[in-house]
Amino acid sequence: MRIAILLFERVTVLDAIGPYEVLRQLPDAQVVFVGERVGTVRDESGGLGLTVDAPLAEVTNPDVVLVPGGPGQSDHMTEGPVHAWLRAVDRTSTWTTSVCTGSLILAAAGLLRGRRAATYWLAVDALAALGAVPSRERVTFDGKYVTAAGVSSGLDMALALAGRIAGDRRAQGIQLGIEYDPQPPYDAGSPATAPTDLVHAQRAGSRFR
Amino acid sequence: MRIAILLFERVTVLDAIGPYEVLRQLPDAQVVFVGERVGTVRDESGGLGLTVDAPLAEVTNPDVVLVPGGPGQSDHMTEGPVHAWLRAVDRTSTWTTSVCTGSLILAAAGLLRGRRAATYWLAVDALAALGAVPSRERVTFDGKYVTAAGVSSGLDMALALAGRIAGDRRAQGIQLGIEYDPQPPYDAGSPATAPTDLVHAQRAGSRFR
Repeated sequence: MRIAILLFERVTVLDAIGPYEVLRQLPDAQVVFVGERVGTVRDESGGLGLTVDAPLAEVTNPDVVLVPGGPGQSDHMTEGPVHAWLRAVDRTSTWTTSVCTGSLILAAAGLLRGRRAATYWLAVDALAALGAVPSRERVTFDGKYVTAAGVSSGLDMALALAGRIAGDRRAQGIQLGIEYDPQPPYDAGSPATAPTDLVHAQRAGSRFR
Repeated sequence: MRIAILLFERVTVLDAIGPYEVLRQLPDAQVVFVGERVGTVRDESGGLGLTVDAPLAEVTNPDVVLVPGGPGQSDHMTEGPVHAWLRAVDRTSTWTTSVCTGSLILAAAGLLRGRRAATYWLAVDALAALGAVPSRERVTFDGKYVTAAGVSSGLDMALALAGRIAGDRRAQGIQLGIEYDPQPPYDAGSPATAPTDLVHAQRAGSRFR
């Protein structure tokens, strides 16, 4: 089970790490963090450096491909090495997945045309403009394409995917192992439940306006 | 608001990254990943490299200190540079915090004696043996000591801490920004809800037996 997680400058690190913590525990999982250049990339706020261990050209046939999002997504919306790599690995992947605005990259590469897909709540219109059908769900399966909503939703996506790959028991064991029994102290995690003025303020400040 | 997150070899990366994604969004937050040596450490499964940007000696008075856990915790249970640093920064910190078995490191450094503290569900007895009073809660505040249960609980801890530091509205805004509206596909995230045989199997395989 070869799992490739794409990294790039200004990635939202939790988009990648939530699923990583789950998927690396699948039977015989071999995870590789892949990017345009081997070396360190910095996350969206610059506070953390993450290591890209393999260049795109060396990761040719992963079973699972995961594309995170973040402000750096905007650097990967036009033809280039990342799009070419995504289309190439998608030809043989068992699952092609994304978290947050990672689905915009998949869509821009031409992989989500006409497909139902989730994305960050502020990016729903941007996803539609790229030819996908926004689901407004937290996790969406459409064939082998599995897409998650914003940032933290990658945990839910990865557990659901772990269940498909290795069965419910294994996924439950992973959930217990990471003690994922969420108890958020507020109920503000979606535009449907957050205070209305916060929703308006984040819409007004969004780079997708 | 200077926030220091400790890294070490074989850290459980989500322990550090869940809180990081929340706390880095606090007003005027400056996050530094600190460790015994500047450079790359690998997470518990070796799949990911993370950059330590500052050595312990250069991080002298953070406002918030965060200690993650993971198998590498066992390398930091005796006197050494990490314990000395933790005691030093704790003297001036506003908040001293941990996720998962990070509380064992804090306790071994002498900082949780007689204090209520949370930890990974498999490490409750180990925490008690170090002189703390295990809370069996997901997030525990005891004065300025804020400790979280296993791995993913760092998200809940950090949002609660963000509320204390910057107010409920700011914390809610962060929660909306990371779309933290958890919908786990299973209800197996705590020993109270997971299938009993999974709980027994993980107890039997635990390094804390």
